[in-house]
Amino acid sequence: MKTVVIHGPRDLRIEERGVGSLAAGEVLVDVRSGGICGSDMHYYNHGGFGAVRLKEPMILGHEVSGVIAAVAADVTKVKVGDKVAVNPSRPCRRCQYCLEGLPNQCLNMRFYGSAMPMPHIQGAFRQQLVCDAIQCEATTSDIDFGLLAMAEPFSVGLHATSRLGPLVGRRALITGCGPIGTLAIAALRHHGIAEIVATDVIGGPLARARKIGADRTINVAETPDELAAYSANKGYFDVLIECSGNEKALRSALDCLRPRATIVQLGLGGDISIPVNVLVAKELSMIGSFRFHPEFALAVKLISERRVDLSPVLTATYPLSDAVAAFDAANDRQHNMKVQIAF
Amino acid sequence: MKTVVIHGPRDLRIEERGVGSLAAGEVLVDVRSGGICGSDMHYYNHGGFGAVRLKEPMILGHEVSGVIAAVAADVTKVKVGDKVAVNPSRPCRRCQYCLEGLPNQCLNMRFYGSAMPMPHIQGAFRQQLVCDAIQCEATTSDIDFGLLAMAEPFSVGLHATSRLGPLVGRRALITGCGPIGTLAIAALRHHGIAEIVATDVIGGPLARARKIGADRTINVAETPDELAAYSANKGYFDVLIECSGNEKALRSALDCLRPRATIVQLGLGGDISIPVNVLVAKELSMIGSFRFHPEFALAVKLISERRVDLSPVLTATYPLSDAVAAFDAANDRQHNMKVQIAF
Amino acid sequence: MKTVVIHGPRDLRIEERGVGSLAAGEVLVDVRSGGICGSDMHYYNHGGFGAVRLKEPMILGHEVSGVIAAVAADVTKVKVGDKVAVNPSRPCRRCQYCLEGLPNQCLNMRFYGSAMPMPHIQGAFRQQLVCDAIQCEATTSDIDFGLLAMAEPFSVGLHATSRLGPLVGRRALITGCGPIGTLAIAALRHHGIAEIVATDVIGGPLARARKIGADRTINVAETPDELAAYSANKGYFDVLIECSGNEKALRSALDCLRPRATIVQLGLGGDISIPVNVLVAKELSMIGSFRFHPEFALAVKLISERRVDLSPVLTATYPLSDAVAAFDAANDRQHNMKVQIAF
Amino acid sequence: MKTVVIHGPRDLRIEERGVGSLAAGEVLVDVRSGGICGSDMHYYNHGGFGAVRLKEPMILGHEVSGVIAAVAADVTKVKVGDKVAVNPSRPCRRCQYCLEGLPNQCLNMRFYGSAMPMPHIQGAFRQQLVCDAIQCEATTSDIDFGLLAMAEPFSVGLHATSRLGPLVGRRALITGCGPIGTLAIAALRHHGIAEIVATDVIGGPLARARKIGADRTINVAETPDELAAYSANKGYFDVLIECSGNEKALRSALDCLRPRATIVQLGLGGDISIPVNVLVAKELSMIGSFRFHPEFALAVKLISERRVDLSPVLTATYPLSDAVAAFDAANDRQHNMKVQIAF
Repeated sequence: MKTVVIHGPRDLRIEERGVGSLAAGEVLVDVRSGGICGSDMHYYNHGGFGAVRLKEPMILGHEVSGVIAAVAADVTKVKVGDKVAVNPSRPCRRCQYCLEGLPNQCLNMRFYGSAMPMPHIQGAFRQQLVCDAIQCEATTSDIDFGLLAMAEPFSVGLHATSRLGPLVGRRALITGCGPIGTLAIAALRHHGIAEIVATDVIGGPLARARKIGADRTINVAETPDELAAYSANKGYFDVLIECSGNEKALRSALDCLRPRATIVQLGLGGDISIPVNVLVAKELSMIGSFRFHPEFALAVKLISERRVDLSPVLTATYPLSDAVAAFDAANDRQHNMKVQIAF
Repeated sequence: MKTVVIHGPRDLRIEERGVGSLAAGEVLVDVRSGGICGSDMHYYNHGGFGAVRLKEPMILGHEVSGVIAAVAADVTKVKVGDKVAVNPSRPCRRCQYCLEGLPNQCLNMRFYGSAMPMPHIQGAFRQQLVCDAIQCEATTSDIDFGLLAMAEPFSVGLHATSRLGPLVGRRALITGCGPIGTLAIAALRHHGIAEIVATDVIGGPLARARKIGADRTINVAETPDELAAYSANKGYFDVLIECSGNEKALRSALDCLRPRATIVQLGLGGDISIPVNVLVAKELSMIGSFRFHPEFALAVKLISERRVDLSPVLTATYPLSDAVAAFDAANDRQHNMKVQIAF
Repeated sequence: MKTVVIHGPRDLRIEERGVGSLAAGEVLVDVRSGGICGSDMHYYNHGGFGAVRLKEPMILGHEVSGVIAAVAADVTKVKVGDKVAVNPSRPCRRCQYCLEGLPNQCLNMRFYGSAMPMPHIQGAFRQQLVCDAIQCEATTSDIDFGLLAMAEPFSVGLHATSRLGPLVGRRALITGCGPIGTLAIAALRHHGIAEIVATDVIGGPLARARKIGADRTINVAETPDELAAYSANKGYFDVLIECSGNEKALRSALDCLRPRATIVQLGLGGDISIPVNVLVAKELSMIGSFRFHPEFALAVKLISERRVDLSPVLTATYPLSDAVAAFDAANDRQHNMKVQIAF
Repeated sequence: MKTVVIHGPRDLRIEERGVGSLAAGEVLVDVRSGGICGSDMHYYNHGGFGAVRLKEPMILGHEVSGVIAAVAADVTKVKVGDKVAVNPSRPCRRCQYCLEGLPNQCLNMRFYGSAMPMPHIQGAFRQQLVCDAIQCEATTSDIDFGLLAMAEPFSVGLHATSRLGPLVGRRALITGCGPIGTLAIAALRHHGIAEIVATDVIGGPLARARKIGADRTINVAETPDELAAYSANKGYFDVLIECSGNEKALRSALDCLRPRATIVQLGLGGDISIPVNVLVAKELSMIGSFRFHPEFALAVKLISERRVDLSPVLTATYPLSDAVAAFDAANDRQHNMKVQIAF
C-alpha cells in the first residue's frame, strides 16, 4: 500500500509499505480521507517542533476516516463495511491516569504520527491501517468521508469546550482562527455560548470563522481598538479560547476578560510572557486543554447527524499522488484552512 | 493623633492628623497593633510598584486590630469596648461584582493605604481609625492584639485555599516562604491538606515554614535536585501555591505537578514567562487569588479560638516611635517575617 | 385599566384598577401579551397550593411583554417605545443572598402574582404595569409579543440547564412534558446536550416535546418498558430534569441514571418518597432549581435573535375579554401547553 | 484457621476454614484486628437488609488490619512483616466505571462480606486472609492494630468530605452520631470545617461526637428547639451530613440549611419522604456518598501519623472466642460505638 512519509524538512515522499496482520481486537481500515494537521505541517516545514525532531522517516497523519475491510475474530464493536472515523489515541488503559479517567494523560500513550518517542510512532496517512477496534467510531450516516475525518480536530474543540466550566449565558473570545480556533467556535456555538467574538490578523480565516458561527470578528492587525473597547468595567468576556499561541494575542485579550474569567489555552508555541499581576488581580484561570478522549465519539455523532456543519473549515482536497501539493496548500492561511488528502 | 506617613522612598514620618467624626454606620477604633505588609514595604523602599507610585503623602498600613472607642447611633454589629480586627476592604455593595458575590472585585473598592487612585486612600497606621462597623470583626477571646492583627494576611492564605478546589488527599507545593507563603501553609494545614512541601532560597523563612506546618522544606538555591525528584510519572503535587512571583520558582515547580494540577498564583511581581506547552500538555490550571472577603471573619474566628497558631510568623514588634526601625527590620527576610507596630 | 383578578377557586374577574404613578427608576409598560403559568392555574383551580392560599383578591400573571409607555426622569436602561419583556422578580439587592449573587434567594423578594405574603403581591395581567426599569429587557427584534412573553418560563429552563454542571456529551432524560419540561428541552437542545429522551403519560405534550427538540419520547403510561431498557450497566443518562413532581416518574427514572448522574428537580407538588439506597449507592445528586435571574436577559436575547423557536409551546391566545376561557383552555393538557392572553 | 461465620439471624459461629494459596499479585495477611460494621450487624440481627439476604453461610467482616505473612513472587508493594490495613474493595480495573476513575462504582466489584451476589463474597473476619497486594496499605507507625483497622470506616467519612465541594468557612450539621457519623465529624474537623453541630437521640453517641470534634451537640429527642433555632433567615448550615437514614432527622435538618446547601447522604435504610418544595425553593443539593477508594490510603496515613485520633470511637475489643459477645455489645448504642475483635 502507499503511504505519506516525511524524511526531513520539505522532504515528503509517497512510499510503499506492508499492511501488517491483525492481532486480537484489531481491525483493518481502508483509509479514505486524511486531514493535514498543524503538527504534520511542523514536520513538513521544519522537521519537528521544540525538542521533538525527526530522527527517522515517519508516516504522517492522524485525522482519518475510512471503511472497515477486515476484523479479528473477537471484534464486536465494528464489522466489515462499516464507515468509521479512527481515533488516533491509543492509551494503555492500565496506568494511573487511565484509571483516573484521564486517558489523554496516559503514561504510555501511542498517538499516530509522533516523533516524540524513538522509534517514532508511525501515522495514518496510508491506504490501509491496522488499529484497535476500540479506536473506531462507526456511523450509518451518508456523511462524506472528508467531513467525517474532521472528527479528530473537532474533538479538540469539544474537549476545550468541556474544560470551560459553566456555559449558559457565557460570552467567548477566540484568539486565532486557524483550523483549531474555527472548530472551537463550532463547538462553542453548538453548545449555546451566548456570544462569540473571534480575532486573527488575516482576513481569510476570519471570514470562515464568521461562516461557522462567530457573531463578530476583529482583524486585530487592522483595528485593534475594536477589541480594546471590550475592556470597560474590568472586561466583558467570561471565556477566552486562546488558539494562536501568540503572546501578543493573549496579552491584549486579558484586558477584555471579566474577573474570574477562564482562559482555555489550546495554542502551542513555546514560552509566553504573561502579566502575572493581571491574572492575580482579576483572579483569572488559565487552563490547558490537551487533545480529547470521550469527545471523539461525540464528534462523530454530531458530524454524522449533521448537528454541526464543518464544511466552511474544509477548503481543499488533493489526491494521494498530490500529497506534496496538499501540504503546500495548507501553508496558505489566507486561502486555506483544513486541507485533506483522498486515499 | 499620630500616624505613619510615607512621603517617598525611605522617607517615612510620624505625623499628627485629625481623627475625623463618625457618620451613620461608622465606628471609632483605638488601634493597637498594625502589621507591615509587602505593599507597605514597596512604598517604603521604592515609592511604589509597577505603575502605582506615590503622588502625595499617604498613611500606610492595612493590617490592624484595636478596641472600639465609639460607635454611631445606628450601629449594632459592635459596641464600645469590643476587641476587633479591621477588614481594610470597603467594597461599595452596589456594583455588578458586589452583586455577583465578588466584593474583592468591586469597581469602587476602597482599600486602606493604596496609591492607585488619586487622591490616595489613606491607610490604617494611626492611633485612631474611623471605619464602617461592617469592617469590624469582634472577638471575646483573650488573644493578643498582634496575633489578631494577622487576620488580614491570614485571610489571603485562606482565600487562596478556598480557590483550590478539592482539598481531601491533596499534596501541595508552596514556592516562596515569605509571610504570605507561610500563612498559606497555615491555612492549608488547617484544612487538612495531606502533604505540604515548601521551597525558598533562604534558610530563615524555611525554618518558620516548617514550624507552622510544612512537612518538608527545600532550599532550592542549595539543593534543587530535591525538588526535581518529584517530577517522575508526570509529577507529584496536586496543587501549587506560588508565593514568590519569581519566574524560576514557577517554572521549576511545573515539572513537579501532576496532570490537571491547580496553581494558585499569589505572588506578584511583573511579567513571568511560562512554558505554554507544559501548561497545555498537562492540562494545568493557573488561577489568580486576590485578597479575600468572607475569609476575613473566618480568620478572626480561627485565630481567636486558637485553632491556628500564627506566632511563628510574627517575629518582631516595635513601638510607634520606632516605626522606621520596624520597616528596616522587615527588609531582613533571613531574620524577620511579619513585623508589627504597637500603637 | 383592565386587570385579571382572582377572587377564589374558579372565580376570575376582569376588573378596572388605577395605573399608579412613576417613582424614580420606574417605567410604565403597555402590556401586550401575558402567559398563564402553572401557579396561576393553581389559584384559578384551587385558590392556592399547599400552605399558600388566597386571602384577598389578587391580580394574576407574571409572564408579560409590552411596550414602554413612559419612563421616570432618571431612567436610562430603556426609553419610550421600546419593546420589552418584564422580569417579574424584584429582589432587594441588599440582603445577604443578593450580595452573594443569589438574587433568586432574596430574603425580601417581590414576585408578581403571589399570595404568599399578606397583603398579596399583585400580578402583571393588566393593561398597564408600573415596574422598575431594571426589570425590563428591551429588544429591537420584530419577534411577536407572544413569543417574547415566554422569556419568563424559558428562563426557568435555562436556569435548570445552568444548574446541571458539565454539558458536553451529556445524555438527558426529562420526566414531565408540560410547559416547563418542554421549555427545558428547548434550553438543553440549544446548549448542545447530546441526546434527549422525554417521558409523559399523555400524547399531546410528547408530540410538542419532539417538535421542540427531544430525540425520542416515551409514553410511560403505555410503554414503560421502553424506559426500563435504559437501566443496563447501572444506567444510561447523565442528567435527569424532573418536571412532573410525580413520585412514580422520579423513581422509575432513577434506575436509568448512571452513577454520579445529576437530577435537577423543577417539578413541585408536595412530598416525594425516594429510595435513599439508590441515591447513595449510585452517588446521585438531586438538586433544586428555583426560578432564574441572569437567565432572563439571556432568554430575551435567544428568543429575539430566533436562536430558539418556542412556537411549538405556544398553543393558544385569547383576548383579554375571554380570560376565563383562556384559563379553561390551559387545563386541557392534551390539546394545550402555553395559553396566553392578548391585552 | 478460625473464621467468624454467620448462618442466619443470631446464628454466629466460629468455624475452621482452609487458608488457600497465593496467586500472582497476592499476599497472605495475619489478621490482628477486625471492626464490626453496621452491615455485619444487619446480617447478625436480621440475616440481611432490604433485598439482600443470606442464602448460604458467610464469613463476616471487612474492617481489618494485620501483618504480611507471605507474598507472591511478583509482589513489590508490600513485604513480609509489614503492618497493613486491608482495603476490602476489589474493583476490576477494566470496566467503564473503573476507567472513568470511579472504582467504587465498578460493575464487577468484589467487596468482603457481601450476600448480594451468589455465591456470597466471603469476608475478612478470619485469622489469615489472602488478598491482592494492591489492597494493602502499609505503615511503619507504632499505631495499634485496632486504630489501624478503623481506616475502612474512616475512609467512608473522608469520601463524604471529598463529596462536599468547598470546605473553607463551611458550617456543618451532622444528623446521626453512630460510628459513621462520628468518623465523618473527625474527617470534617481534620479538614478545617469552621463549625460542626451534631444531633442524635441518645446521649452516649453525642458525648463521643463532642470528644472527636463536634463544637456542639443537640439531643433532638429532648431539645428539638435548639436545632430549630438555626432556621432563621432561610437557614444556617452550608452542609449536612445525613448519617441516620431517618426521615425525621433529614426533614427537620432541611429547615436549618442555607440556600444552595449540600446534603451528603451517608445513612442507608429504605425510602425517605422528602419535601420537594423545600429542596427546589432553596436549591439544595442532596448527593449520595458510597464507600470510598483513594481515601483508604489517606485514612491509613492520617491514622498512622496520628493526625487524627479516632480512639473515642473505639469503645470495646473482644477476643475471637467471644465474637458473639462482641456483636451483642455492638447493639448497645448508648455504651458502645465501634466494637472490634482481636484475632
